[in-house]
Amino acid sequence: MRIDGLQYANWSERIFREMRAGGVDAVHVTVAYHETFRETVLQLEAWNRRFERHGDLLLRGRTAADIDRARETGRTAIFFGAQNPSPIEDDIGLVEVLHDLGLRFMQLSYNNQSLLATGCYEAEDPGITRMGRAVIAEMNRVGMVVDMSHSADRSTIEAAEISARPIAITHANPSAWHPARRNKSDAVIRAVTERGGMLGFSLYPHHLVGGSDSTLEGFCAMVAGCASAYGVEHLGIGSDLCQDQPDSVVEWMRTGRWTKEVDYGEGSAAAPGFPPMPGWFRDNRDWDRIDEGLTAAGLDPSEVAAVMGGNWHRFFAASFGPAA
Amino acid sequence: MRIDGLQYANWSERIFREMRAGGVDAVHVTVAYHETFRETVLQLEAWNRRFERHGDLLLRGRTAADIDRARETGRTAIFFGAQNPSPIEDDIGLVEVLHDLGLRFMQLSYNNQSLLATGCYEAEDPGITRMGRAVIAEMNRVGMVVDMSHSADRSTIEAAEISARPIAITHANPSAWHPARRNKSDAVIRAVTERGGMLGFSLYPHHLVGGSDSTLEGFCAMVAGCASAYGVEHLGIGSDLCQDQPDSVVEWMRTGRWTKEVDYGEGSAAAPGFPPMPGWFRDNRDWDRIDEGLTAAGLDPSEVAAVMGGNWHRFFAASFGPAA
Repeated sequence: MRIDGLQYANWSERIFREMRAGGVDAVHVTVAYHETFRETVLQLEAWNRRFERHGDLLLRGRTAADIDRARETGRTAIFFGAQNPSPIEDDIGLVEVLHDLGLRFMQLSYNNQSLLATGCYEAEDPGITRMGRAVIAEMNRVGMVVDMSHSADRSTIEAAEISARPIAITHANPSAWHPARRNKSDAVIRAVTERGGMLGFSLYPHHLVGGSDSTLEGFCAMVAGCASAYGVEHLGIGSDLCQDQPDSVVEWMRTGRWTKEVDYGEGSAAAPGFPPMPGWFRDNRDWDRIDEGLTAAGLDPSEVAAVMGGNWHRFFAASFGPAA
Repeated sequence: MRIDGLQYANWSERIFREMRAGGVDAVHVTVAYHETFRETVLQLEAWNRRFERHGDLLLRGRTAADIDRARETGRTAIFFGAQNPSPIEDDIGLVEVLHDLGLRFMQLSYNNQSLLATGCYEAEDPGITRMGRAVIAEMNRVGMVVDMSHSADRSTIEAAEISARPIAITHANPSAWHPARRNKSDAVIRAVTERGGMLGFSLYPHHLVGGSDSTLEGFCAMVAGCASAYGVEHLGIGSDLCQDQPDSVVEWMRTGRWTKEVDYGEGSAAAPGFPPMPGWFRDNRDWDRIDEGLTAAGLDPSEVAAVMGGNWHRFFAASFGPAA
């Protein structure tokens, strides 16, 4: 089983066929960066059209059982997530509405301060806000995963503590391996995994030692180290694949409507766009390489299967329904 | 089994308890008159709170099986509908989005011309529009019932012909019995029922001979006549109960934001508000009276059961899922 904990591509039939070629059973796809509720609904409408047009390749994922249905019918299950709480605006009632519409992950902040939590680019992190506590409780109630991939450390640790259900960092790597702003400290990873949460390893070049020249061996050795440190059962892949997107999309991700200036995020004035993916993971067709790399790094077959998708499947099954 | 084809009350725990006292297993409730998409979502959020607070009395209906679940657990299943296509604005993609959020009925027009069809108060009725044809096809695809209760005759007959699935007039009576503007001609009722559609009899005083002084005997004799004329299997109740609503709500129904003038609709300057309900149907507690009245009018027990809810149950089961 292969499950990707995060992708945001410029979706096309070609990409959906690459998912099938790579044996990808399920993908958590981003439907909002800075979109309002209505703008997010337009993204969901676009997905409804894709499900209608490409029903031979895709199905809409609502529960972990939909992954099994996708496997049985040779398709990929698509699960929705938001990288920012902008889709709920200032209205906690939109948590359940968006869950009804299929949203299964929501980041509490994206680089900046939000109404709920602090992002990883802010100078100060005052932790989870009053509304943040209320929204975490509501997400717990309906079955929407708290994702802290782009959040600051204190906010992330507090979210893990406050949430009654395990949370996730769907796409990031340990900063001890590569000290990027978006990678996560040992304390953060422990706070998440010790409470049953998940870490999805990112393949986005800015998150990798060596960037686009990163090696498969280096990446897989890092994963093996994390399996020893945090327990293999808390680990998955969250490739952060942003395939075929124009630079205008990376600009939207980084600056939304919050500034009139240029913000380069993890890039720079010299390299403002998406960096090329590492040669060993061009796109969805290359999942076999990760499988092979993890085996070469010393993981046994059951551990490889857990990291490639088994852990996400278990986590999805425990997370997407109403609280018991 | 007792199913009401339309209510729009000022919802309260007292009313939900009256539904239980009256043995009402399911109700189609209005969630929009002139509301935009976002405003409709606010109404759905309010219902989500009611389901959370009154889970002992209510459950959210999505399929006919939810009616059976409601009966087994002593609750009332609530199904959503819009009296106007305003919630989809100018965006056909919102049909599937609103179906995902539980909308199971949508009127193509409400008294006035809409983007889709003509309402029963317009002087001219040019029939179903271009967008109307597209939206009917989309409603057919996802499983949302075309409701023509407030539409004009030509538009209604065309909708019945264009729709690939049976349509409904959820709340109106024959104009041959009482020639109110909102009641329906024989040609309209035949167009709907001959194609498998449903007519829900209204208990709103403006739709009744004698208004608030209408008699149970007269109403039930009219129902018995329709059973002979159109077939008992196409008949149900759509009480149009608007309990506990202030006059401001009847104003919203009638004038929305489409005029700055006063429009009295079925009322008049002398009687602008909701008229009192007939004494034999004060509210949901009085469903036994209709049962008794239909029996007294000569319907046999299986016919009474069909009109009281069995027909709506069959129609819901055939209508709310994706097209085969």
